[in-house]
Amino acid sequence: MTDALSELDFGDDGLVPVVAQDVDTEAVLMLAYANEEAVERTVETGRAHYYSRSRDELWEKGATSGHTQAVESVRLDCDGDALLYRVHQDGGACHTGFRSCFHRTVEGETVGEQVFDPDDVYE
Amino acid sequence: MTDALSELDFGDDGLVPVVAQDVDTEAVLMLAYANEEAVERTVETGRAHYYSRSRDELWEKGATSGHTQAVESVRLDCDGDALLYRVHQDGGACHTGFRSCFHRTVEGETVGEQVFDPDDVYE
Repeated sequence: MTDALSELDFGDDGLVPVVAQDVDTEAVLMLAYANEEAVERTVETGRAHYYSRSRDELWEKGATSGHTQAVESVRLDCDGDALLYRVHQDGGACHTGFRSCFHRTVEGETVGEQVFDPDDVYE
Repeated sequence: MTDALSELDFGDDGLVPVVAQDVDTEAVLMLAYANEEAVERTVETGRAHYYSRSRDELWEKGATSGHTQAVESVRLDCDGDALLYRVHQDGGACHTGFRSCFHRTVEGETVGEQVFDPDDVYE
């Protein structure tokens, strides 16, 4: 691991929250979590890896859907307990077919575009 | 609370992670946490509120530094366990004086600009 990575604070549960941001549109695509192995694989391969808390396993984004994230850079925040993946998003980041998981406001308004039909992607 | 807000999942600890994004530059500024009261106050006042895990208290961004965040909109993600505050950032979001808390890469490179001297702001 590089010097900056060694400063990462994975907390009691061994995870850090990760924000994925689209470098092409600057949209915030999703928030997920990574353990140390997920961060290492992301840096080594240039493909976004996360840790699924519900499935309790390492997870490469797009492994099922084909909607991968090519990682341009990984940034950490001032106190080392959050990460920012700057990515080129293939297709949509959201399992609902939207480009971004943040596709609705608290007032219930839909923002952003649906770029694929989830029924065509997930069986 | 609006319909969409009532879908928020605050989890076991009563908190959701919040990404703050600058509507003027689209930069991701910071990641923090909010409890239900922080979200309600943010929506009611239009000023970003969070919950400090270290100080264990509700917190209005900029109350000490003056570097407030005027919230243009609040979005929630597909499964309702993360929020995105779209904000106009006054000054810098980071206590180190940088515009964004994500001002360094895992390779140790500094990105972004320091917009204030923290010694002038925090006593």
